Amino acid sequence: MHIFTRNLLTEWRKLGLPFDDKTFVVAISGGADSVSLAVALNELRDRKKLNLRFVLAHFNHNLRGDESLEDENFVKELAAKFDFELAIGLQNSESKIENQKGNLEQNARLARYAFLDETAKNVSAVAILTAHTLNDQAETFLLNLIRGSGLDGLSGMKPISSLKSEVSILKSQKQISKLDDESKIQNPKSKIQLVRPLLRWAKREDTENFCLLNEVEFHYDSMNEDLAFRRVRIRKVLLPLLKDFNPKIVETLGKTAALLRENAELLNHSVNLEATDRENESEVENLSSKDGENDAIEVLLVKDLKNVFPSMRRFIVREWLKNRRGDLRRLSAKHFEAIENLTLSRKSGKIIELPGGESVIKKDGKLYYEKTIVEKS
Amino acid sequence: MHIFTRNLLTEWRKLGLPFDDKTFVVAISGGADSVSLAVALNELRDRKKLNLRFVLAHFNHNLRGDESLEDENFVKELAAKFDFELAIGLQNSESKIENQKGNLEQNARLARYAFLDETAKNVSAVAILTAHTLNDQAETFLLNLIRGSGLDGLSGMKPISSLKSEVSILKSQKQISKLDDESKIQNPKSKIQLVRPLLRWAKREDTENFCLLNEVEFHYDSMNEDLAFRRVRIRKVLLPLLKDFNPKIVETLGKTAALLRENAELLNHSVNLEATDRENESEVENLSSKDGENDAIEVLLVKDLKNVFPSMRRFIVREWLKNRRGDLRRLSAKHFEAIENLTLSRKSGKIIELPGGESVIKKDGKLYYEKTIVEKS
Repeated sequence: MHIFTRNLLTEWRKLGLPFDDKTFVVAISGGADSVSLAVALNELRDRKKLNLRFVLAHFNHNLRGDESLEDENFVKELAAKFDFELAIGLQNSESKIENQKGNLEQNARLARYAFLDETAKNVSAVAILTAHTLNDQAETFLLNLIRGSGLDGLSGMKPISSLKSEVSILKSQKQISKLDDESKIQNPKSKIQLVRPLLRWAKREDTENFCLLNEVEFHYDSMNEDLAFRRVRIRKVLLPLLKDFNPKIVETLGKTAALLRENAELLNHSVNLEATDRENESEVENLSSKDGENDAIEVLLVKDLKNVFPSMRRFIVREWLKNRRGDLRRLSAKHFEAIENLTLSRKSGKIIELPGGESVIKKDGKLYYEKTIVEKS
Repeated sequence: MHIFTRNLLTEWRKLGLPFDDKTFVVAISGGADSVSLAVALNELRDRKKLNLRFVLAHFNHNLRGDESLEDENFVKELAAKFDFELAIGLQNSESKIENQKGNLEQNARLARYAFLDETAKNVSAVAILTAHTLNDQAETFLLNLIRGSGLDGLSGMKPISSLKSEVSILKSQKQISKLDDESKIQNPKSKIQLVRPLLRWAKREDTENFCLLNEVEFHYDSMNEDLAFRRVRIRKVLLPLLKDFNPKIVETLGKTAALLRENAELLNHSVNLEATDRENESEVENLSSKDGENDAIEVLLVKDLKNVFPSMRRFIVREWLKNRRGDLRRLSAKHFEAIENLTLSRKSGKIIELPGGESVIKKDGKLYYEKTIVEKS
C-alpha cells in the first residue's frame, strides 16, 4: 500500500470514521486533491480495508464554458473507470446572474454546498468527504490574515465540521447575495457532517505525486493559474517567499491555524455559548445524530453580564448576537456600546434598535434579541 | 503643534499616564523611532503640556565597534541639545562572550532591559518609555508566525506592560544563556512598567518624517540593512510584498496582534490563572504599585480538573506549569499526557518526573509542582 493510502487509512481511524456499511459522498472537482482522494479510497475499498459505499459528487459551476464541460466529462470517465457512483450538479443560470453581483467565489461555494447537501440526503450518506489539504489550510490562513482577521478568521478548517456551520462561517465572512440554494442549506434539519481526511497531513505535492504514481490524470483549473485571483497570488508568490524563511511553512501555518481554532473553541466553551458538540471530534458519534448546534443561549442574564470583566462581557454579547443573528453583519461599535450601556444602566425595559428591524430588549433582568419579520409583498 | 506630537499627547491621555511631577526613563538608541519620541516629548515639555522629568537612557551593546561609539556620541549630543539628562550603559565584555553562545538578539535585549531597570530605579522613575511602533508590532507578528506560534506568540506587544513580564516572555521564547544581568531582572521586587506610547498609531515613516521635519538627525543601524537578519528580511522583502495585497498591511497586522492579545488574556482570565492586573490597562494605577503578578495559583485541585473539558484541562495544566516554572522548556507531549493520566487516575500519592529534577505530585486531591534545587558545587 502506498504511503499516501496508508496515511489516509490512519487518519480515517484517528477521526473515528466507520469502516463498514455506511455511505459517504466524495466531493470531486477533477483536481489533483480530490482525484487522489478518490483513487486512495478506491484502493482501500479494493483491499477490503473499508467496506463502504462512496458516491462521487461533482458540481459544474458552469463558469468556464468548455473547460467546465471537460472537467465534468473527465470526472464521469474517472467514476466509470473506478466503478464509483456519480452525482452531477449544474449551477443554474439564475444563480449565475446573481453571482455577478455578489462575491463570485463564495457564492459558488455556497451553491456547491447546497448540491452536496442534497446529494448526501438522496443517497442517505453519513458524511461528505472533501479533499482540502494542508495547503488549503495555509492559503486560507494567509488570505484571512492579509484581509484582516481576529481569532475566528485565523482559526483553521476542522477535520470534521457540520455543513451548516461551514455555511454560516461563509456567510459571516462576506456580504453575499441571496441565492435560492442558500435557503436549502439554511434548513436547520441538515445534520450532515463535512469530513476532510487529507487536511491534517497531505500537501498539494503529495496529492499530485500520488496521481502521477497511479498514472491517473487530473485537471488543472485555469483559474488556479490566474494571478488576478488573490488566493492564486498567495499560492504562487507569497508562499514560495515564505518558504525561503521556513521550508516547512505550510505545515507551520497549518499547525498555527489548528492551535488558534482550539483556542477559539476553548474561549467559546468557557463562556458556555456554544453547543458542546465540537468536543471529542475524534468520536464516531459525531457523525450520526447530534442535534446540539441549536443549543445556543437565547437570553442573557444582565446579572451575569455585570459580574464579568468588561472584555468578557463584550465577548459574550458579541457571541450571543452572532448566534442569534447568524453573523455580525451591519453591526458596528456604536451598537455594541449601546448594548453595553443598556446592560449597565439601572433602568429596565429599554430597547436598542439594530439595523433591519432588529432589536435588543432589556426586560426583567434579561436581554432579549428580537427580529421583526418583514413579509415579502 | 505637529500632528505627530499631538498624536503622542492624545495617546498619553488614553494610556492614563501622569502629566505632572513624575520621572520617566526614555530608552533611546539613536534611530528614528526613539529620536522622534524624544523630540516630541521635548516639545510637549516646552509647551508645558507635560510637567515631567525625562531621563534618556542609551545602552551601548558594544557589538559594532566604531558605529556603537558613534551612536553613543550622537545620543550625547542630542541630550545636550534638548537639555535631557542622560544615562549611558555599556555591555560588559563577559556578557559579550556569553552572547556568542546564546541568541545574540535576545541576550542583547535582556542586557538592555537590565540597564533600563537599574536606571529607572536610580532616578526613581515611574515607568520606562520605549519607541516601539506599529511596524515593530507587525514585524514581530510575522517573525513569530513564520517561526511557528500559537495564540501567545502571535499576541502583540501591549502599550503598557511590566518589564518583568516582558523578560519572562523573552525567556520563554528561546533557550537563552545565563547572563549576569538576567538575575537583576528576575528580582521579583521590580515593579517598573514599560510604556510604548507610539505602538498603537505611529508607523516608521511617521517617525522618520517627524525627524526630517524637525531637522533632527537620526542614525541608521547598519544591522538594519543586513538581509542576513530575519527581521530585516521581513521588513525589506516580505512586508513590501504584503503591501501589494493590502496597502494597510502594517495597520491590519497590528490590529490582529492586538485582537489576539485580547483573546489570550480573556482565555487566561476565564481560567483564573493569571493575575488580574492586565485588565484596565488604561488606568493610571497600573503605573504605580501593583504587586499582583505573583498571584498565580500554586496548587491545582484534581476535582476541578476532572470537571472541565479535556481541552480546558490541558490548557489549565499548561498555564499552571508555565507559571510555576517560568516557561515550558524541555516539556514534551508525553509529560503532559502523564500529568493528565495522573489527574484522572484514582490512585493518590503518585509522582510524574519532569526533566531537571522537577516533578508534579498528586496528594490529597491536589497537584503540586516541586523542584529539587541542585546546589552548585
